[in-house]
Amino acid sequence: MSSQNTRRQRNLAAKTGRLASGELALIAAIRRRAGSAAARRVCLGIGDDCALLRLRPNEDLAVTTDLSIDSQHFRLDWHPAESIGHRALARGLSDLAAMGARPVAAFLSLGLPRVLAQTGEANRSAARGAIWIDRFLDGLLALAAQHQTPLAGGDVAESPAALADIVLTGAVRRGRALLRSGAQAGDRLFVTGSLGGAAVALAKLAELASSNQQPLKIPRRMHDVLAPHLYPQPRVAQGLALARRALATACIDLSDGLSTDLTHLCDESGVAAVVDAAALPIAPGATLQQALHGGEDYELLFTAPPRARVPRTIAGVAITQIGRVVRSQAAKPAVLLKTADGTQPLQPRGWEHFK
Amino acid sequence: MSSQNTRRQRNLAAKTGRLASGELALIAAIRRRAGSAAARRVCLGIGDDCALLRLRPNEDLAVTTDLSIDSQHFRLDWHPAESIGHRALARGLSDLAAMGARPVAAFLSLGLPRVLAQTGEANRSAARGAIWIDRFLDGLLALAAQHQTPLAGGDVAESPAALADIVLTGAVRRGRALLRSGAQAGDRLFVTGSLGGAAVALAKLAELASSNQQPLKIPRRMHDVLAPHLYPQPRVAQGLALARRALATACIDLSDGLSTDLTHLCDESGVAAVVDAAALPIAPGATLQQALHGGEDYELLFTAPPRARVPRTIAGVAITQIGRVVRSQAAKPAVLLKTADGTQPLQPRGWEHFK
Repeated sequence: MSSQNTRRQRNLAAKTGRLASGELALIAAIRRRAGSAAARRVCLGIGDDCALLRLRPNEDLAVTTDLSIDSQHFRLDWHPAESIGHRALARGLSDLAAMGARPVAAFLSLGLPRVLAQTGEANRSAARGAIWIDRFLDGLLALAAQHQTPLAGGDVAESPAALADIVLTGAVRRGRALLRSGAQAGDRLFVTGSLGGAAVALAKLAELASSNQQPLKIPRRMHDVLAPHLYPQPRVAQGLALARRALATACIDLSDGLSTDLTHLCDESGVAAVVDAAALPIAPGATLQQALHGGEDYELLFTAPPRARVPRTIAGVAITQIGRVVRSQAAKPAVLLKTADGTQPLQPRGWEHFK
Repeated sequence: MSSQNTRRQRNLAAKTGRLASGELALIAAIRRRAGSAAARRVCLGIGDDCALLRLRPNEDLAVTTDLSIDSQHFRLDWHPAESIGHRALARGLSDLAAMGARPVAAFLSLGLPRVLAQTGEANRSAARGAIWIDRFLDGLLALAAQHQTPLAGGDVAESPAALADIVLTGAVRRGRALLRSGAQAGDRLFVTGSLGGAAVALAKLAELASSNQQPLKIPRRMHDVLAPHLYPQPRVAQGLALARRALATACIDLSDGLSTDLTHLCDESGVAAVVDAAALPIAPGATLQQALHGGEDYELLFTAPPRARVPRTIAGVAITQIGRVVRSQAAKPAVLLKTADGTQPLQPRGWEHFK
């Protein structure tokens, strides 16, 4: 153990640079909550100018940042604070999963409107802010703990709109990262889990919001049906298994929707793909359109060579072949959809943000 | 060279996940500009689910995030776009400098109001947005190039207020990182460069803004006097030299002002300090108060053992002893200021954001 390791406990003070007094209280709250999530690869956590991360030999570090802003990626008046924290982290974990990387540490930059940022003063609005932040961290840190991902640093500021920028770092064995660019004609096309469930849940959330006062109270009986949108499960274990077994030639996570993300994968690999509508694992209650274009399912879409032995499930999640990779032809669409009526182009019509 | 390296060129496509069409054009603009800054340690840049970074054996990765928001850390109606880009990156580079870390890669999460985010359409507001973003990137990438720091990824979104969250990653030899916590009684206290210059420049900028139309046009004759605020120079080379020579027992960057940041260093090290007012390298035109409490000088404050041979300059920047570290005493203030009138407590009264 290096001298830096032994100093870590003393260094778990707030990163106090550049903070107004309300912000100091806010970062103290985050530090208290994050403190218990220390991990061996984080040699130095919250409290110094930087965090320090350690890799093993022959590992590279995967880094991704995802910005979530009120009214674009969530709505303060619709989403429970726990869900906003969970979803912000899930986006980054899903990017790591799509690379086959094991999470090392997360960093959170949190911007809050004054009414939520005043945790340090003893009045009603301060109490509201403190409760909101606690619930936000409940959601974020529960998912972080599930994936052994310590919160190792970040920044806070007052902001006109609530926002959370999440940075995820992960370790991946050198040469084993799952890229978007490796698919070849002849490969088979797979997805994890089911498609369209998040779109169904989002539609139900919007319906609930239209007939209720804001901020929205979500009845207990709705929890399960809304979960695919409020609490999506990033496929970290599945991505790790694909990388470990060197099964996938290319991989991307389904954040925008199958039609859009498959187009990205085809563009990056210089190939085309045919999706078999009858093979799609459509989520209960979802339409074909929701399965094709609904975003935020956070499943993995990957390709594997024709003779690769792809298991039917990985870590309890179903793996389904939904089509195949074909040669790209100039001026022809990259993605085709095969239905009972024949084969048509599948335009990327993925999800757009809350407007 | 791994297969991932050879694939990099093909992977320099936009990280297109979760973007509306205007945002696609925005990230394409960033990618075009960032493309030239590739570096050996970035094995995979913009275009996949994550970037991939490579360290050498016996190196740790330093990570810092800094959130800059309109009206908190800059003002869209005061600051040239180049300055906003420069300052956002300078904050992160200064954190790396304070750890003695060599920059590896930067990541930018950019949130822009609709009027600036519409770069993809052919109308007047789109032209304004495209020009602003180009100038923002001019400022950010010029400083990045100066410090061999490629822009390796990030995210963009529409946001009610302009914001830039900068993530800096850096490499530091294992056990050599400069922490806040290593100062011991008897150590001498040093700063790089001069103090208070950024406060003088900020006051002049505010004066200029009060007597001019917004958005502010900065006359050429004012460039030099405003530079310490608009274009602060992070002390990366100085931090690297301190770490390489193992000269410093503790280090922090002066972002909030000497009185506040020295208090942090003392708190983390469990010591107290006496500052000699007569020894302070006060910037031309600055008052003692500005040197003590003015923020954003982005100089390094460090401690060194009594007999360490500390050079008078490092990479062309003056190094000045400004005081010494003493034993901490319960219920006594951590920082004292010695003047001709005697020795008084120095309260942390560092800089607060634009309000």
